[in-house]
Amino acid sequence: MRPQIVLFGDSITEQSFRSGGWGTALADSYSRKADVLVRGYGGYNTRWALFLLHHLFPLGSANSPAAVTIFFGANDAALSGRTSERQHVPVEEYKENLRKIVHHLKQCSSAMLVVLITPPPIDEGGRMEYARSLYGDKAMKEPERTNEVAGVYAKNCVDLAKELGLPFVDLWSKMQEAEGWQKKFLNDGLHLTPEGNSIVFQEMQRVFNKAGLSAEELPYDFPHHSEIDGKNPRKAFRIQCS
Amino acid sequence: MRPQIVLFGDSITEQSFRSGGWGTALADSYSRKADVLVRGYGGYNTRWALFLLHHLFPLGSANSPAAVTIFFGANDAALSGRTSERQHVPVEEYKENLRKIVHHLKQCSSAMLVVLITPPPIDEGGRMEYARSLYGDKAMKEPERTNEVAGVYAKNCVDLAKELGLPFVDLWSKMQEAEGWQKKFLNDGLHLTPEGNSIVFQEMQRVFNKAGLSAEELPYDFPHHSEIDGKNPRKAFRIQCS
Repeated sequence: MRPQIVLFGDSITEQSFRSGGWGTALADSYSRKADVLVRGYGGYNTRWALFLLHHLFPLGSANSPAAVTIFFGANDAALSGRTSERQHVPVEEYKENLRKIVHHLKQCSSAMLVVLITPPPIDEGGRMEYARSLYGDKAMKEPERTNEVAGVYAKNCVDLAKELGLPFVDLWSKMQEAEGWQKKFLNDGLHLTPEGNSIVFQEMQRVFNKAGLSAEELPYDFPHHSEIDGKNPRKAFRIQCS
Repeated sequence: MRPQIVLFGDSITEQSFRSGGWGTALADSYSRKADVLVRGYGGYNTRWALFLLHHLFPLGSANSPAAVTIFFGANDAALSGRTSERQHVPVEEYKENLRKIVHHLKQCSSAMLVVLITPPPIDEGGRMEYARSLYGDKAMKEPERTNEVAGVYAKNCVDLAKELGLPFVDLWSKMQEAEGWQKKFLNDGLHLTPEGNSIVFQEMQRVFNKAGLSAEELPYDFPHHSEIDGKNPRKAFRIQCS
């Protein structure tokens, strides 16, 4: 009955329903208007995401989502030859995988709003500190992700969005506009602090508002309680529930 | 595909997806296992909730929720003859309305886990302070809800749960076990603080665990990333995605 907004991505999407998360903020803002569903898969890259596509978004479904956000790249951009190598996907393949995901979603419903989100920037120092806090002397000696490489993936994501005419959030660039972004927005050099979550939420609001899916403008599913006449409640429900 | 847990209730359910809310905490704990959907209607009593029942939970749907929480009573228990009179529903009718809601849900699916939640206790002083903060000298001179009356509604809710053999959360009693519950759990004498939200979340976990719907025991929808062989990813997906 209600429109669905599906958040498809890796751990940054999976964690978006933690307290203060950007998914939670979206769900709250669309309360009584749309359902926000998380399809976040920690550790996943776009290559692995392809295996899920037909299961999460079956072709021919009568209930395709109104909007889907695609937020991968942080794991694809893990460096080959470093500790997270198994998650690495070459950037050309990353871009083609994103294209396949978009193509599939548009096949599900050509009216679907598909939004691409780039990976966030990487604070290499933060990654190293985080590894040392977990593994001490056994921690990696070189970061498994670099900001420069993440930027290449981000650029490819933006290029694809422009090519396909899709709305996008260039999180990699947006976050780096702020002084001290490394600790302000990232808590382990990669995942988001509450302020980092706020940035994603604000950017998502900007995109949804521009696309005509603003939370303010969507109708309530049922009357606000102040519109219900205590003595004749049926009247308020007549239109929406007849 | 995934089981759904639907939270049906008034403002205390509607607000459960705010940061730190009990709905958010549930959604996060069921991440990759079940979808938690909010159907919270601020200001609604059970009489008005009945108008929504067939729309929110259509009979004959192939996708009935696995579990539904029913969390009304705070508005039904607004006192007749006071400022929130239009929301008042006599306690006998409140109980019968709850019975109708349960009956309808069980008709949707006899396997559905239906959980009744009583209204929280009322901090009458907190309600008066809140009204004064909004309306100053024009605020109500007597509270529009009392803890004693909320307790009568809570008791009827618990009695019905016992009669029907349903799991329940007696929030009215549970919260009052703690010293200083008035400010600890309630922020305006009625709605929940983060600690109040935690209590509801813990109680929901207790009920779901006992009913065999614990988040820990439900299977992941797809393999954990650590189970995916970087060189042969298809293998990990073969069983769940064939």
